[in-house]
Amino acid sequence: MEKTAQEIFTLLKSTVINQVGRIVFSLGDTTVTMKTTDTVGNSLQSWLQQWFLDNDIYESEPTNTQEFPDFYLSESNPKDNMLEVKAFNYNASPAFDIANYESYVSSVAEKPYRLNADYLIFGYTMADGDITIKKLWLKKIWEIAGRGKRYPLNTQVKRNVIYNIRPSSSFKNGLPSVFSSKEDFLKAVYETQKMYRGENNANDWLEKLKTNFRNYYHTTLEI
Amino acid sequence: MEKTAQEIFTLLKSTVINQVGRIVFSLGDTTVTMKTTDTVGNSLQSWLQQWFLDNDIYESEPTNTQEFPDFYLSESNPKDNMLEVKAFNYNASPAFDIANYESYVSSVAEKPYRLNADYLIFGYTMADGDITIKKLWLKKIWEIAGRGKRYPLNTQVKRNVIYNIRPSSSFKNGLPSVFSSKEDFLKAVYETQKMYRGENNANDWLEKLKTNFRNYYHTTLEI
Repeated sequence: MEKTAQEIFTLLKSTVINQVGRIVFSLGDTTVTMKTTDTVGNSLQSWLQQWFLDNDIYESEPTNTQEFPDFYLSESNPKDNMLEVKAFNYNASPAFDIANYESYVSSVAEKPYRLNADYLIFGYTMADGDITIKKLWLKKIWEIAGRGKRYPLNTQVKRNVIYNIRPSSSFKNGLPSVFSSKEDFLKAVYETQKMYRGENNANDWLEKLKTNFRNYYHTTLEI
Repeated sequence: MEKTAQEIFTLLKSTVINQVGRIVFSLGDTTVTMKTTDTVGNSLQSWLQQWFLDNDIYESEPTNTQEFPDFYLSESNPKDNMLEVKAFNYNASPAFDIANYESYVSSVAEKPYRLNADYLIFGYTMADGDITIKKLWLKKIWEIAGRGKRYPLNTQVKRNVIYNIRPSSSFKNGLPSVFSSKEDFLKAVYETQKMYRGENNANDWLEKLKTNFRNYYHTTLEI
């Protein structure tokens, strides 16, 4: 059956919080429990897919599984029911990649409904191979994004190249989100583009975003 | 006990070729077998560490496990007994990252013994969760590196930034390696640096490499 992201979130919270898991790899006579965190995120995404199957919850995925989103939760209205899965070590600050910067910026202008995707975030701890789910969140992108030192949007920057959009710690710490609305978040994307790619490029992007937003939602995006 | 990379390679070949493994993640009432290849490389590295333990083979690791190398195989002479572990889908061309370009280039000049590290490469297939080890190789970096279209060294380039050193397919295809010696490989690194960072920068790098090589090996590096 189809369930909304909110229904899934409620169901998951009641079943996985404080559950303990393990990633085990057996090959030949040697079996190892993974003790590093580098495979937890991908494993949780596969786990969630199996959990959907076990619980008879509808999901589908893009043909290219590297693409956004991780899951569609509705067959009749996939674009307005998109779920992204993220995970981070609960003993540290959230440092997952919300999205690749370039691909997010270009795709949100093409497909403004991407703004409404839900982010299901797992906060886990890892101790000697035991993975414990400590907390779950369900958030929109503007509720987890943040402001950066170098650019208005918090991003991962290396050798002057922006790689990824990175989260603020506010959601983990139970503080109000940095951005108050999708418009507020998009303003920071626009200002970042302006600094990074120049004003003309940023204005072209904003124009395209506004046009596609109007076509999709039949309301005007006020930025 | 301590074993050389060659001894380990021989032992592994006789035990893991055609062995089938699975990566399984259990959490709560849901258990999933991983069917994507994105966690295989990290899992094989953890598996090898456990295999060393099970077979009473000495290994140690850098304090920062993100750093080079994956394993030291000798306690008394760690620098000349370094092992890197790589893995790729045997049904495709090898596309693993040999190393981050910037960090390799700067560290090889500082620590020329890095040139002699052994690369243990797993060629696996993945079919519905079953991971089968099809082939193993033990190679030096100049035996797996290749020439690129854009630069003399085959690298991953995005938006004009060189990210990683990528392998040639020659080792998989049983062909002679692209570079005939470490000197031949270093020449390609030098020529790549020259195009990418300019001649002065490349010459400074080569000077440092030659000096440190002489200090370590007491012979002259002829490039």
